[in-house]
Amino acid sequence: MGKVIVLRIGHRFFRDSRVTTHVCLTARALGADGIIIADRHDKTVESTIREVAKRFGGDFSIESGKPWRRTILDWRDMGGKIVHLTAYGLKLPDVIQEINEADRDILIVVGSEKMPGEVFKLADWNVSITSQPMSEVAALAVFLDWHLENHAFEKVFPRGEIRIVPSRGQKNIERIG
Amino acid sequence: MGKVIVLRIGHRFFRDSRVTTHVCLTARALGADGIIIADRHDKTVESTIREVAKRFGGDFSIESGKPWRRTILDWRDMGGKIVHLTAYGLKLPDVIQEINEADRDILIVVGSEKMPGEVFKLADWNVSITSQPMSEVAALAVFLDWHLENHAFEKVFPRGEIRIVPSRGQKNIERIG
Repeated sequence: MGKVIVLRIGHRFFRDSRVTTHVCLTARALGADGIIIADRHDKTVESTIREVAKRFGGDFSIESGKPWRRTILDWRDMGGKIVHLTAYGLKLPDVIQEINEADRDILIVVGSEKMPGEVFKLADWNVSITSQPMSEVAALAVFLDWHLENHAFEKVFPRGEIRIVPSRGQKNIERIG
Repeated sequence: MGKVIVLRIGHRFFRDSRVTTHVCLTARALGADGIIIADRHDKTVESTIREVAKRFGGDFSIESGKPWRRTILDWRDMGGKIVHLTAYGLKLPDVIQEINEADRDILIVVGSEKMPGEVFKLADWNVSITSQPMSEVAALAVFLDWHLENHAFEKVFPRGEIRIVPSRGQKNIERIG
């Protein structure tokens, strides 16, 4: 499996900070290698996610402010493929095999309602999670789970300070090292 | 498969309206039958979701303001089971078979950081999506996809006014009737 980076387009500082934080946590927990928040710097979201990564481990990267078109074109120049998650795309079950068999580095583009139309043309695959109005957080979650073929649940997050111990009925956090 | 209703706990009017809207859209698109927003009325979220359901079809129910404990206790009295999505629970792959084989009506409880500890005790299953800090929107999406065994993608939404026609590269919306 190649590298997986999420590109968040259309983020507006403050107004979108909470939803973008959800996008970041989802990307990290479900096995993406990092996220780029396009066009706008958001040091608040960046520091929240860096703090999570420091405490819970792993190598998740986050940067903000890089222009979205440049990010997509650079990714293609490096030989990577572009997946655009949109309600208007082809249904996930109909394209996931083709995407996974391509076995390339994947940039997953997620946005808001104001996604530039050009993204449809730049994408190698426009992919829909259910063809219904949808949360981009949920779309990203389901896509990652299918793309990584449920292996996100086995992902190891090294060098954390604490870890959650799965429990049938209580909060159980363990300090590491 | 029994009925599936989502119970959103800890919603605060305005501050949480966008994230709760994501929770509602996710529940609807991925096959839940309805959502209850506990303890607080939010007519804005309700009308947004009703408008989506009117335009895109289906029988998704939404109500807000019912107390969370009462909702859970009523559900149990009716013979239903409670699934609480929390980072601290047992890992999804380890419990999903037991949940699905129980074949009962399911109330899926999703919350925010301030989930009352009592919910852990009232739940039949405390379920974690990855044991990492996580978006409840993403957790709900992945849980529904596993619980409905990927069949959400085939769900039909009758009596809508419009529908999205899946497309490789453009927005394509069709009027119905």
